Amino acid sequence: MNSFGRIFKVSIFGESHGESAGITIDGCPAGLPLSVDDFLTDIERRKGGTQKGTTPRQETDLPIFKSGLFNGFTTGAPITILFENNNTRSGDYQKQRDFPRPGHADFVAHQKYGGFEDYRGGGHFSGRLTVCLVAVGVIAKKLLSNIEVKSTILSIGGEADLEKGLQKAIDQKDSVGGIVECRVNGLPLGLGEHFFDSVESLISHAVFAIPAIKGIEFGIGFAAANMFGVDHNDAILDASGITATNHAGGIVGGITNGNELVFRIAVKPTSSTPKTQSSLNWTTGTVESFSVKGRHDLCIALRVPVVLEAVTAMVLADLMLIDQKIPRVIAQ
Amino acid sequence: MNSFGRIFKVSIFGESHGESAGITIDGCPAGLPLSVDDFLTDIERRKGGTQKGTTPRQETDLPIFKSGLFNGFTTGAPITILFENNNTRSGDYQKQRDFPRPGHADFVAHQKYGGFEDYRGGGHFSGRLTVCLVAVGVIAKKLLSNIEVKSTILSIGGEADLEKGLQKAIDQKDSVGGIVECRVNGLPLGLGEHFFDSVESLISHAVFAIPAIKGIEFGIGFAAANMFGVDHNDAILDASGITATNHAGGIVGGITNGNELVFRIAVKPTSSTPKTQSSLNWTTGTVESFSVKGRHDLCIALRVPVVLEAVTAMVLADLMLIDQKIPRVIAQ
Amino acid sequence: MNSFGRIFKVSIFGESHGESAGITIDGCPAGLPLSVDDFLTDIERRKGGTQKGTTPRQETDLPIFKSGLFNGFTTGAPITILFENNNTRSGDYQKQRDFPRPGHADFVAHQKYGGFEDYRGGGHFSGRLTVCLVAVGVIAKKLLSNIEVKSTILSIGGEADLEKGLQKAIDQKDSVGGIVECRVNGLPLGLGEHFFDSVESLISHAVFAIPAIKGIEFGIGFAAANMFGVDHNDAILDASGITATNHAGGIVGGITNGNELVFRIAVKPTSSTPKTQSSLNWTTGTVESFSVKGRHDLCIALRVPVVLEAVTAMVLADLMLIDQKIPRVIAQ
Amino acid sequence: MNSFGRIFKVSIFGESHGESAGITIDGCPAGLPLSVDDFLTDIERRKGGTQKGTTPRQETDLPIFKSGLFNGFTTGAPITILFENNNTRSGDYQKQRDFPRPGHADFVAHQKYGGFEDYRGGGHFSGRLTVCLVAVGVIAKKLLSNIEVKSTILSIGGEADLEKGLQKAIDQKDSVGGIVECRVNGLPLGLGEHFFDSVESLISHAVFAIPAIKGIEFGIGFAAANMFGVDHNDAILDASGITATNHAGGIVGGITNGNELVFRIAVKPTSSTPKTQSSLNWTTGTVESFSVKGRHDLCIALRVPVVLEAVTAMVLADLMLIDQKIPRVIAQ
Repeated sequence: MNSFGRIFKVSIFGESHGESAGITIDGCPAGLPLSVDDFLTDIERRKGGTQKGTTPRQETDLPIFKSGLFNGFTTGAPITILFENNNTRSGDYQKQRDFPRPGHADFVAHQKYGGFEDYRGGGHFSGRLTVCLVAVGVIAKKLLSNIEVKSTILSIGGEADLEKGLQKAIDQKDSVGGIVECRVNGLPLGLGEHFFDSVESLISHAVFAIPAIKGIEFGIGFAAANMFGVDHNDAILDASGITATNHAGGIVGGITNGNELVFRIAVKPTSSTPKTQSSLNWTTGTVESFSVKGRHDLCIALRVPVVLEAVTAMVLADLMLIDQKIPRVIAQ
Repeated sequence: MNSFGRIFKVSIFGESHGESAGITIDGCPAGLPLSVDDFLTDIERRKGGTQKGTTPRQETDLPIFKSGLFNGFTTGAPITILFENNNTRSGDYQKQRDFPRPGHADFVAHQKYGGFEDYRGGGHFSGRLTVCLVAVGVIAKKLLSNIEVKSTILSIGGEADLEKGLQKAIDQKDSVGGIVECRVNGLPLGLGEHFFDSVESLISHAVFAIPAIKGIEFGIGFAAANMFGVDHNDAILDASGITATNHAGGIVGGITNGNELVFRIAVKPTSSTPKTQSSLNWTTGTVESFSVKGRHDLCIALRVPVVLEAVTAMVLADLMLIDQKIPRVIAQ
Repeated sequence: MNSFGRIFKVSIFGESHGESAGITIDGCPAGLPLSVDDFLTDIERRKGGTQKGTTPRQETDLPIFKSGLFNGFTTGAPITILFENNNTRSGDYQKQRDFPRPGHADFVAHQKYGGFEDYRGGGHFSGRLTVCLVAVGVIAKKLLSNIEVKSTILSIGGEADLEKGLQKAIDQKDSVGGIVECRVNGLPLGLGEHFFDSVESLISHAVFAIPAIKGIEFGIGFAAANMFGVDHNDAILDASGITATNHAGGIVGGITNGNELVFRIAVKPTSSTPKTQSSLNWTTGTVESFSVKGRHDLCIALRVPVVLEAVTAMVLADLMLIDQKIPRVIAQ
Repeated sequence: MNSFGRIFKVSIFGESHGESAGITIDGCPAGLPLSVDDFLTDIERRKGGTQKGTTPRQETDLPIFKSGLFNGFTTGAPITILFENNNTRSGDYQKQRDFPRPGHADFVAHQKYGGFEDYRGGGHFSGRLTVCLVAVGVIAKKLLSNIEVKSTILSIGGEADLEKGLQKAIDQKDSVGGIVECRVNGLPLGLGEHFFDSVESLISHAVFAIPAIKGIEFGIGFAAANMFGVDHNDAILDASGITATNHAGGIVGGITNGNELVFRIAVKPTSSTPKTQSSLNWTTGTVESFSVKGRHDLCIALRVPVVLEAVTAMVLADLMLIDQKIPRVIAQ
């Protein structure tokens, strides 16, 4: 469903071209200072329109607090934050309604929800909703205080030089994918719960809620499959648990081991490429050429880092609360 | 925690060298015929000792039904299945207690549980518990009836020839990792729930509960990050949703699209390599050489396919029940 | 926390004198027609100001749909509904901040949330939030279609004549309690899940979320404690499960038995009585006389019936979805 | 379903005349000393056969630890405890299979589970499973340490003199109901979560999982409905929150207020009365006279107090863990 977490419990709602997108956070400790200013940097990082390869669609994207704040602090009651959709051009989407866009949820949503889905701009499946995740991330990061959650783009279209990878896409007039890495420093040893609530389980669960993600690997990841055990094992150096190498990416047995948490994700190329494609025309029932209209990112991976940080911080804040490493009232 | 699922709800318990390992399945439909014989094939597939590279430890591993069955059929009440631990040699583990084994949960479990953890053979963190997952898988597969869930090993130690990869490890007297793929055929279109309960989210959540897994990718996975959109998009061919290619691995927008479900996982080399390692000695507080005693698999990936099928079937059975595609009483 | 339900999952947020109160419903089937008009009757029934003994505070209380609706139908995505707070006079509450009001959450909220709680009008603990429950009830009742959920007031201040009970309170210039009954007709046999999710468990869980409820009894309830078995047992009359009497209130073994569902709840007198009380003054630290200012109901029980119907319908809609008796897409 | 709790998570399984009944507790802190001896007193209190009015069926009822314990302490991993069923006489139940017993789950279970239910002795619906709840209670009470949870029988068959009430039933050769009260002393102020997880919501949810319970009231309960506000309100006396009266039963706004927690439950007369009843004969399809065979309690209320303490302690232990008032590792 649309919720996640056990103590720090997040519920998301909204559509791309509906009234709004929003989020409710239940279980956030009381006493956390919070203002619109806290959100500006991360919301700005997520926005399109500021660099090559991102969509020219510009939402003001100021968070509107509807509940859970009083006198500038969280109250312990559920926090609801809305983002209004002011800048929608649904007409773009109406025109291409004949074609369920390949790589999009258009076709499956239509079948699953019997044609009642809000199809405009992908509706509830739209990347638009990631602005809500970013808002959650801002709050979660504040709760994590000294723990640093940082994502960076490792490559675009297979090129480590991001400009070059992006230029390839621009030259091709096509969209392109990328790889994003997330690193977390300062985590306590011992986070994560037994078995189904391993850190990898919870992070991957949350990460695959971000549209366009198709893979995740922790530490050395897929490369581990080609290694020998003695090379892969991270020797423990002292009683703090620090290891000589960090092939495990900071997680052993599903539990954080006090080293840097490291993982990478694969972002597919934006499905809405400007290039002409051939696919089913719903009206005619035959495969035809068409091209996707509307404003879209050439490379959605450019907008992913801040969203990835957000869901990671969300998972970690919940684990910290479960493990009683964040109190339920933040002392001032 | 140790449970997973919303309608078909699985809870796991037990230890490697304790009394037993076991599983309770709540929410399984009534009327499913079930006998010990149903479990033999998959339990045999998981067992060590039958091929090069797996541990000589042999449990009889017959499932003992403790509840939820009556006259050979499931009753709708919780099904509890035990596997007794008859063949344990904890002495092996006592000896190496000075060294928290690199790559194992020994160190983090000790810290997290204040020294109260059952450390023998990895205790609750042991791969031993995967026999319980296999039992769940047997039941889930029966519920899925015509849907085929099938895993195969793609490579061992980087070699597509499995014999060759394994021989490398034997020659090196070291453990080695591998890559396992899972494919599911016959799935209905429309499984998976919005946002946090995407099919990728739920499968990855369950998969990372299997010990030694460090990565997962769906469809073309990490390779998508290097592709252009027009090449990556799977053209829809007709009203059934069948696509010309299957780069998405059968999931779009987190929802099954009626094509084959395909994903791959990375299995790290067994942490308990027979090779000499250097790591912290808890007693002396210094880094010293030691080697892991006990009976271990050289390549745990060899035992993973049936476990991977099991957790995949478990996730899909739950989604089918949520989506009302499996009834709550199986008609005979 | 602030959420309830397994498939039909409700999350509540908001405060009495904050921006708004609201609700998100996740898992509502797609295809249910829904408009503001559907809500008017039940919202009107809940409102104060229309009869003796209810508060003169009047909110417009029109539901504002923020997500999950498209072209007049539910989409299958989360439905968020807001109620704005336009008519607040927090000043009333500021004045009496010296006294944590007896019978209110003022004192415990202050201690639990470290003084960060929104105390205006009870904040998140306010009866104001029941308007959100009423909105949920409207949707749940539509899902239940032919099943009728109906609450009535049985007594006020111990008087079966409601006018008389109310007049006693008005004469006394004091608040007064009451008893409300709920009856559900047309329920299928077999709703309710094993053990912890018995129908009584789930209904009572939801009912005690309504402020001011202090007791619940099913069927003949507390009177059963004084009866002999042969008198209490409801004889089954035919294969439909209809019974000669209905002392069980339509639930046996936690499962609906096809007879009328019947239960009653006790509503305490409104804590905010206009009478002078003696209680702790936070500032002086001594017990002093004071009287509660603000607009309050003399008899909150008058507003409870529609709220009670709402949470009952909410629980039943979830059980119907779990038991696959409501489809996930409503056919038109 | 068959599980309850958010951190301290309990799952129950088993049948009356199957292999066993059992319980798994996930999330119990590590480091709690635990032995069979800890369980004897409470299991003895629950047992039949030791006083007038309880069933002569005698199980040895020694808890068998299957997981989660090591060297006499909890490990932090799931604790599974089995109770074997050694003393079953299913023949008694076979004979009366023609009649779905009034007041029992026989009829609804048959309809809901399509005839696959284990009907022997009520199967999974049997009071036999309350021995598992008692075991949970033993562990929960140890976690609560200085907090005292104590239940007493207030009346049997309407008589405050329990002997007299019981003798009435014996004289009548009929079963009889009763009222049981639970009081908890030493609870910290502030337990309970917002709205749906009020203390009343959680306790009533758990209490109605006990078979034969038909009502619950907190503090002065149903009597509150007849009171005026100024009489009902509990005046706060000092900064500790202690109140002059305790009509609220120690819970205000769903949160504990530092006073004694008090509530009462109604236990219906045992459905299996020895008296002749008339009800549907499944085979003939007509209403006929019959009498229930088998060993049954005349007054199930006699066995309820220890079970009521158990579920109450279970709920409170979970709330204490959520509110970080019990640590995740018990220091020795």
